[in-house]
Amino acid sequence: MYRTHTCGDLRLENVDQIITLSGWVQKARSLGAMTFIDLRDRYGITQVVVEEGSADLVKEAAAALGREYVITVSGKVVERQSKNSKIATGDIEIIATDITILSKSDTPPFTIEENSDGGDELRMKYRYLDLRRPPLKRNMILRHKMAQAVRNYLDSQNFLEIETPYLIKSTPEGARDFIVPSRMNTGEFYALPQSPQTFKQLLMVSGYDRYFQIVRCFRDEDLRADRQPEFTQIDCEMAFVEREDVLSTFEGMIKSMFKTIMGVEIDYQFPRMSWQDAMAYYGNDKPDIRFEMKINDVTDVVKGSDFPIFDSAEYIGAIAAEGCAAYTRKQIDALTAFVKRPQVGATGMVYVKCEAGGQYKSSVDKFYSAEQLADLAAKCGAKEGDLILLLCGDRKKTLSALSALRLEMGDILGLRDNSKFAPLWVVDFPLLEWDEETERFYAMHHPFTSPVKEDLELFSTDPGKVRADAYDFILNGTEVGGGSIRIHEAELQERMFEVLGFTPEQAQEQFGFIINAFKFGAPPHGGIAFGFDRFCSLFGGTETIRDYIAFPKNNSGRDVMIDSPSPVVEEQLKELGISLR
Amino acid sequence: MYRTHTCGDLRLENVDQIITLSGWVQKARSLGAMTFIDLRDRYGITQVVVEEGSADLVKEAAAALGREYVITVSGKVVERQSKNSKIATGDIEIIATDITILSKSDTPPFTIEENSDGGDELRMKYRYLDLRRPPLKRNMILRHKMAQAVRNYLDSQNFLEIETPYLIKSTPEGARDFIVPSRMNTGEFYALPQSPQTFKQLLMVSGYDRYFQIVRCFRDEDLRADRQPEFTQIDCEMAFVEREDVLSTFEGMIKSMFKTIMGVEIDYQFPRMSWQDAMAYYGNDKPDIRFEMKINDVTDVVKGSDFPIFDSAEYIGAIAAEGCAAYTRKQIDALTAFVKRPQVGATGMVYVKCEAGGQYKSSVDKFYSAEQLADLAAKCGAKEGDLILLLCGDRKKTLSALSALRLEMGDILGLRDNSKFAPLWVVDFPLLEWDEETERFYAMHHPFTSPVKEDLELFSTDPGKVRADAYDFILNGTEVGGGSIRIHEAELQERMFEVLGFTPEQAQEQFGFIINAFKFGAPPHGGIAFGFDRFCSLFGGTETIRDYIAFPKNNSGRDVMIDSPSPVVEEQLKELGISLR
Repeated sequence: MYRTHTCGDLRLENVDQIITLSGWVQKARSLGAMTFIDLRDRYGITQVVVEEGSADLVKEAAAALGREYVITVSGKVVERQSKNSKIATGDIEIIATDITILSKSDTPPFTIEENSDGGDELRMKYRYLDLRRPPLKRNMILRHKMAQAVRNYLDSQNFLEIETPYLIKSTPEGARDFIVPSRMNTGEFYALPQSPQTFKQLLMVSGYDRYFQIVRCFRDEDLRADRQPEFTQIDCEMAFVEREDVLSTFEGMIKSMFKTIMGVEIDYQFPRMSWQDAMAYYGNDKPDIRFEMKINDVTDVVKGSDFPIFDSAEYIGAIAAEGCAAYTRKQIDALTAFVKRPQVGATGMVYVKCEAGGQYKSSVDKFYSAEQLADLAAKCGAKEGDLILLLCGDRKKTLSALSALRLEMGDILGLRDNSKFAPLWVVDFPLLEWDEETERFYAMHHPFTSPVKEDLELFSTDPGKVRADAYDFILNGTEVGGGSIRIHEAELQERMFEVLGFTPEQAQEQFGFIINAFKFGAPPHGGIAFGFDRFCSLFGGTETIRDYIAFPKNNSGRDVMIDSPSPVVEEQLKELGISLR
Repeated sequence: MYRTHTCGDLRLENVDQIITLSGWVQKARSLGAMTFIDLRDRYGITQVVVEEGSADLVKEAAAALGREYVITVSGKVVERQSKNSKIATGDIEIIATDITILSKSDTPPFTIEENSDGGDELRMKYRYLDLRRPPLKRNMILRHKMAQAVRNYLDSQNFLEIETPYLIKSTPEGARDFIVPSRMNTGEFYALPQSPQTFKQLLMVSGYDRYFQIVRCFRDEDLRADRQPEFTQIDCEMAFVEREDVLSTFEGMIKSMFKTIMGVEIDYQFPRMSWQDAMAYYGNDKPDIRFEMKINDVTDVVKGSDFPIFDSAEYIGAIAAEGCAAYTRKQIDALTAFVKRPQVGATGMVYVKCEAGGQYKSSVDKFYSAEQLADLAAKCGAKEGDLILLLCGDRKKTLSALSALRLEMGDILGLRDNSKFAPLWVVDFPLLEWDEETERFYAMHHPFTSPVKEDLELFSTDPGKVRADAYDFILNGTEVGGGSIRIHEAELQERMFEVLGFTPEQAQEQFGFIINAFKFGAPPHGGIAFGFDRFCSLFGGTETIRDYIAFPKNNSGRDVMIDSPSPVVEEQLKELGISLR
């Protein structure tokens, strides 16, 4: 038997028991004739002592130990003289009477501690060692618990988890599919799903009115820092529902997760914001509402006072940074440099300091009277001691720059505390986006999203103005989930494909099975999908989703631990009927 | 709002309530001036009545209904005159005051009833309609419940569900991998996992001592009737365990599933059988022990009596079929024909009828005395009224044929009742199988399986005799799970690859990451994987796993509903750096 207890189990009440533990040597240090071993497993660390009077075999084994050796220790639990309140087992230690080395270890390439000395690349290569570190262990446990919480909640709400296939069919629309050559059907290919979208809609047609699945999805896109070629979704769909039903159901799920996992009770309804408002007041469609500092359209207030840059601008927007009126030249310059970065893209920044006694100090003093600046301050809700920051130009680009500036100020002022949570629904997205280059509409979400009922007439006359019956779930400025009420009428779906520039033949070829399915009695339905990796990272309080995936790929889509992707033998390609170009 | 209740909710206590239901029209029939509608959803069927005095709009809607139309009905719950005890809502009906047609339906290509009139192929093409039928609905619900039961049980036992990657690395060993060309790493390929075997072992090295995952696996094999190119496993691994720990843990899981799902309490320890005994007494490694009828080696009893066929045989085996002594010539001939089928492969069959008064009647009377036949009967445990059936020849082939004959007799005698469950562990498999063709050993399970400790010395001297520390879980003659204690010592693993004919370079290239991982402190570990589709089908009491998969492939690996696999556009192949041969 390898153990009677884990390394996290033993307490004062176990004193005098003879026990056996197994685990990894966190460290072994000699103090005179005694050796102290910190023995680690998934559950904790227990101190093992080899005393001067121990049997020679035990002393020899102890002397041979190195970091990360795997050992089994038997001995007696005793109360510690100097207790360690930092660990749960800190009241006791084990007087070893037997030590067996199960497995030796080479010197690990980096330290296996809370904070490792290993660089990113090295830790990715030895991911199995990095996974031994406490932060990653906590993340894997959190992820497991979140998945369990989701499943138990949805099960309690009568949802069925139904597995959909991974070997599906390639569709040219949207991001790139991974494809899989078929040996039994030479020259033909499966595709890996970007999401189970069409299958979950078919399940609605089949009458499974509450479906979910925690499911892997695949996208062969160029990877940004926070993207992975394979990622996990909490994928959900409901039939006989309107938007309100979907939102309240999943608000329930999210609240239950907050409670179960974080011990946080959210007793209010999540705020809702239209996409229009999100863009106007936060400059993006995923507002971080942990802090106010809204963007104000001050075009009317500051235009027409002969300040040429403002006068020629389509739009002038401002934010008020609370208590920042005393910012130095250097601090202001740093902000100006920030907004001028190519990723932000502003050409300059104007500031107005709201000083004591109703005085204003600004970079454009000579164009504006104190009265005008007071109007501006009023418009921005700025009070004495605040700093107003203005950007101008093309409306869309300026709002985007103001959004970046707002978040930067939020960071500077410590308003984006990762232990605080601000959930939000953004609704009423535009249905379509016009693409100048290809001169066609694209679906902003996907081609199955329903227009809102009130806008159905616009669909024929002015499709660009049609709102989608879609919604995103935003947490702390990050999009965690998104969904919509779907089209369930065959004719409307066909019309949608037409607007998107599909010929009837193309629509039939690619989506025929779902158009046809709608001809046999499709219920109204809608759903949502949550990015599970991202959800975990937000609950975990860190940024990178990679830390929440056991075996992630790097930014080139490579698994450097197993060295994949890799070449395959010619024989294999031959069987599949393909060759390299 | 589409509904206040589901079609399975309403009872006598709801009488007089005004309610709204939505669902599919199972059938609509007119009886004089009244129309009766059976409205169906996932939860049940409710009868809706449109009375003679109803509003014209309601009567018109009712008259327009066809099978599988989707409608919303509002009305009053009333007690039924003639109750229907077959359905849960059979005490009530709804007097409709409003009917809205949400979606029309073309005439379905087959009936959507308990037993459909549609052929296999048609039902596969319209899988979304087939999934509306009660048997498939029951199966999907069963599958969901089983997955929940597994997860809740393993969670309660401190197991963590950890997701492993789907885009991994191709290894030539074993069955064929599906491969996935990488666009970002042109000329290189990922592979889809046949199982997460190496990843779960790495997780053990990482210290996650209790791992599981309900996970999709992929095998590009020629498909038999009961195989799918993608299938689901309950994949599990534990560290610091010996075989006994693994078996008792998962015996606990299985018992918990029997209890939760089937309401069956199994209060005994599952029997264990060595692979040797399974082969000797049942002729295969997955005995159906719902019935006895063991195979008896009667070589010594019947050889040497000048019956040439027996005298020249390596092996003669017999089973005793209880109460079949009165079998007619025709029945015996049918059995002879059965064993002569190419799939069974015997050249003939000898029978001995144990008749009243210690009389024996056999097809080889002239070679054997009554005494000898009595000895034979004793050896087989046959008593008056039983029928002994003998096959002979090469030992291995004959045992295989006897196994088929035993199962056939079990079927004929109704001894293989699918509502009865006979769990069994088969243990002590051979570690290696010799392949005559390639003149090398293959791993019977996989190359990470540990030899049993007692046989370690044989590993150097006579590898073919080494037993594996492996185990299969058998339920009613079907292999549902299999696993082993793994090798955790880098040197033993290297030795194993050597025995399997790998050069050190080949081993390093294909499995370097796991061999290396073992150099940093690997704990003893072992695990098991259950075929989840199969498990579901056994609990569901039917044979085909396809009925337990929402969207299965056919025997050519095709999804005929979405018509996949399919050709992809040249542009896509170009981007991936591959072309068709």
